[in-house]
Amino acid sequence: MENNQYGLGIVGFGGMGEHHSRTLEGNERIKVVSVCDIKPERVQHGQELGYTGYERYEDMLNDPQVSLILIATPNDVHKELAIQALEAGKHVICEKPVTMNAQELQDILDVEKRTGGVFMVHQNRRWDNDFRVIKKIYDEKLIGEVYNIESRVHGSRGIPGDWRHEKIHGGGMMLDWGVHLIDRIMVMVNEKLTKLYCEFSYVWQGECDDGFKLMLTFESGRTAFIEVGTLHYASLPLWYVNGTEGTAVIPDWSNKGEMTRLVDFEEKDAMPIVAGAGFTKTMAPRGEGNVEKLPLPVVESDVKEFYANFIDCVEGKAEPFIKNSEVMHVMKIMEAAFQSAETGQAIHFE
Amino acid sequence: MENNQYGLGIVGFGGMGEHHSRTLEGNERIKVVSVCDIKPERVQHGQELGYTGYERYEDMLNDPQVSLILIATPNDVHKELAIQALEAGKHVICEKPVTMNAQELQDILDVEKRTGGVFMVHQNRRWDNDFRVIKKIYDEKLIGEVYNIESRVHGSRGIPGDWRHEKIHGGGMMLDWGVHLIDRIMVMVNEKLTKLYCEFSYVWQGECDDGFKLMLTFESGRTAFIEVGTLHYASLPLWYVNGTEGTAVIPDWSNKGEMTRLVDFEEKDAMPIVAGAGFTKTMAPRGEGNVEKLPLPVVESDVKEFYANFIDCVEGKAEPFIKNSEVMHVMKIMEAAFQSAETGQAIHFE
Repeated sequence: MENNQYGLGIVGFGGMGEHHSRTLEGNERIKVVSVCDIKPERVQHGQELGYTGYERYEDMLNDPQVSLILIATPNDVHKELAIQALEAGKHVICEKPVTMNAQELQDILDVEKRTGGVFMVHQNRRWDNDFRVIKKIYDEKLIGEVYNIESRVHGSRGIPGDWRHEKIHGGGMMLDWGVHLIDRIMVMVNEKLTKLYCEFSYVWQGECDDGFKLMLTFESGRTAFIEVGTLHYASLPLWYVNGTEGTAVIPDWSNKGEMTRLVDFEEKDAMPIVAGAGFTKTMAPRGEGNVEKLPLPVVESDVKEFYANFIDCVEGKAEPFIKNSEVMHVMKIMEAAFQSAETGQAIHFE
Repeated sequence: MENNQYGLGIVGFGGMGEHHSRTLEGNERIKVVSVCDIKPERVQHGQELGYTGYERYEDMLNDPQVSLILIATPNDVHKELAIQALEAGKHVICEKPVTMNAQELQDILDVEKRTGGVFMVHQNRRWDNDFRVIKKIYDEKLIGEVYNIESRVHGSRGIPGDWRHEKIHGGGMMLDWGVHLIDRIMVMVNEKLTKLYCEFSYVWQGECDDGFKLMLTFESGRTAFIEVGTLHYASLPLWYVNGTEGTAVIPDWSNKGEMTRLVDFEEKDAMPIVAGAGFTKTMAPRGEGNVEKLPLPVVESDVKEFYANFIDCVEGKAEPFIKNSEVMHVMKIMEAAFQSAETGQAIHFE
């Protein structure tokens, strides 16, 4: 370990835990030194990769090389593991969703405050390039004032295997993907939420939601529609964003999309077009010269900034990029979404 | 007028009235003989086309050549004009939305029953080819059991000029387009509706809704999402339909779409793909060989069947293709949608 490096222990060395270890290879400030898992074969796998392997979390916490803990276990044990680590004087990175509910997060934050450790949640999808592109369009009004934002992810494989099927471990698509998509919308819109309506889908007939449709209304009247689906053999666009002077679309993660922007309003009362068994003036598409197609703006983003910001926070040099108050807000929105889906009613915020 | 032809008088000779007169050119059973409008220039235009022109509706009703009346006026006078025509012994075709609300329709149906005239609403979009294609996919389970249907129309020109802006005349997109899209979904799904949630948009800041998002849930758990928008410079597909074994998409009225259908489920636990600043197994697209792309089924449809069915009903030879009970049901669903949008709550049906 280099002099200015911090030793990191990963608890929960599954797919996501190992992904972190790979992403951190060559990191100047963080060195993965140990892994801990309840499955002996995962501990062994970590050892084969050159890390110290622990079956008992207490042993990892007692390892003097470990000053940082990264939690990548199922969601139901995040709280307990985070509190133990903070109590042991460690700083903590936690996978999303941070906890099972807002109260569990509050319990962690109380300990964080008392111990002075840093607790930060890995909302990595704030660095998604597609999101950064949309945020730039939004911030810089490249399609006028954005009045509606639609953010979707559509797969066709159902919920992946293991604990993500099980309610007791915090399974389901709202907690898995919803937490990202809501977080990004709240960062972008940065306005008071006034109303929320959510419907869950159970098309795979499991105990956890395998998708959802969520409608958000903000104070200004701006709306967002967030959808996750796991039985979609063809997808609607990742992003579909409506502005007063244009529409932006990003079809998929290849990030090839475009903006269709109004050039000339003249043609408003266009000739009706034949549309099915009727005709329509209202829905007649605009012709060439009336709108222009533009490439998406180019934005740089690198998720490794997350780790750098975490270390800066540990050293008291920066404010957290991902604030726990924001994470708490998203937890409360998800709780309201569950409540809306269960009661079949919209939730109004004062 | 040929021996077996019925003379038709059109009241309200605007865009839609004239569209009917053109569609009826050469019709063997119906001959347009007269037009009536409150605007003298439209009466004159009708006369130039060879029809008898009336400024007073009473005069048209007294014309012995006129046995059928077609109402294509603003929505707020449909009821009064329909009842007058039925009382005068005429049979009536009425443009959609049939009336301003369900009670007005009931008033017409009471008179229809008493007079024995035929009253039929022109839900022409049941003949839209795109709808017929989707209905065939639904009925014949070409993508498995359909569990979610999304039907959208997106324009960018706002509400068209004239009375469609004004609440008092029954303006707004719910009454203009919603009435079609809801009607088609109800014909297709043919199941009890259990829940409805609706949000209106007012992005053009007029007094009438310029679009809406409507979520329907049926007894089986099947869902439908209906959307109309008038400030969309790029559109989402007209139809996006999810089945247990495939997805069907019709992008626009050119009717070029496709079905993506599962061939082989083997690949369920696929390799994770890089997706933005993370990776995902859940949302990894299926590869070739795992799904197949198929052309849409071909269906014939001709809206002129509407007029033929109307005459068959007048002659007591057929049941109406568009039943007034169905039209009433759609009116009640729209009333519930208005109620949902106003209260910000979902409406549950017992």
